[in-house]
Amino acid sequence: MLRSPIKHCRHCGTLVVYRIPDDGDTRERAVCPACGTIHYENPLNVVGTIPVMDGKVLLCKRNIEPRRNKWTLPAGFLELGETAAEGAARETDEEAGAQIEMQGLYTIISVPRVGQVHLFYRARLLSTHLAPGPETVEARLFAEHEIPWDEIAFRTVSETLKLYFADSQAQASSPSATPYPVRDFSLG
Amino acid sequence: MLRSPIKHCRHCGTLVVYRIPDDGDTRERAVCPACGTIHYENPLNVVGTIPVMDGKVLLCKRNIEPRRNKWTLPAGFLELGETAAEGAARETDEEAGAQIEMQGLYTIISVPRVGQVHLFYRARLLSTHLAPGPETVEARLFAEHEIPWDEIAFRTVSETLKLYFADSQAQASSPSATPYPVRDFSLG
Repeated sequence: MLRSPIKHCRHCGTLVVYRIPDDGDTRERAVCPACGTIHYENPLNVVGTIPVMDGKVLLCKRNIEPRRNKWTLPAGFLELGETAAEGAARETDEEAGAQIEMQGLYTIISVPRVGQVHLFYRARLLSTHLAPGPETVEARLFAEHEIPWDEIAFRTVSETLKLYFADSQAQASSPSATPYPVRDFSLG
Repeated sequence: MLRSPIKHCRHCGTLVVYRIPDDGDTRERAVCPACGTIHYENPLNVVGTIPVMDGKVLLCKRNIEPRRNKWTLPAGFLELGETAAEGAARETDEEAGAQIEMQGLYTIISVPRVGQVHLFYRARLLSTHLAPGPETVEARLFAEHEIPWDEIAFRTVSETLKLYFADSQAQASSPSATPYPVRDFSLG
């Protein structure tokens, strides 16, 4: 979702004005007319995992807006102080209470319309014992034919799942192929 | 670099307090005691390219702080409304005025100490005509043995260059190897 506009300077509280700064910038920023602070707003990273056991994928039913009661891979905003992989593992713990072993980065999907970049890592689910947190109604494993495609919360999740199952089939039929190549693309 | 702390609410200008919000969050945020706005701060993406012609790599000598007069790959902060690849291409144009053809994503380097994720794309430099912008003192091509390793501005750049030259040699000696695999890692 898009963020609400900045109204006040974070440094001194004065009402900001939107203009192109004088420092050679080319974009309008919220600039403080009192103390000169320039407020930059940039895309955020959403990081998550594809936890898999015996070919089944762990999905979480969301207990929060947006898309409450829709299904998602465990994912959330990357926090300061974390690597992308650490953030993805943390979200998997927070949302599903799942024990995992992190594997490689798999999809990197820019979503410029909402100012986000989504990064999903493959992961091995180590136990069927799950302990969903407050943001999750229910967490469970789905075989490919069980995936509730019409009830997936975000397109980055459904695209990641489709690629994952296609790569799994390619891998099964031709084990010499590069397994799970990293996929970088964007969704409009 | 780390950002200065938020002092005032972006919505109403009131002095914020740092505390863990009541919504199940686990981290301290700048919370407005008047209007309740929670201010999240998250890692930023830096996006750039490795522009290559005849085995030589384009580097830019920085005309801005930090690391003024050190050499870097063309890169900068991803902006709202862009995909990661679009941002990397824009920075290459702004900093070097270089004509390029974008190739694949190559390195994704988390730098949690400064709250950044750096993404570098391989690119084909199409012309030796360069037109550096105001942020660049000089832009020019370097063969591997000419790289000023002690004068590189950022570790993400030197690590990306080292991997790139190593993969180029592997590719030259074994053309059947996977060319330029995507590299995801972190720097402390």
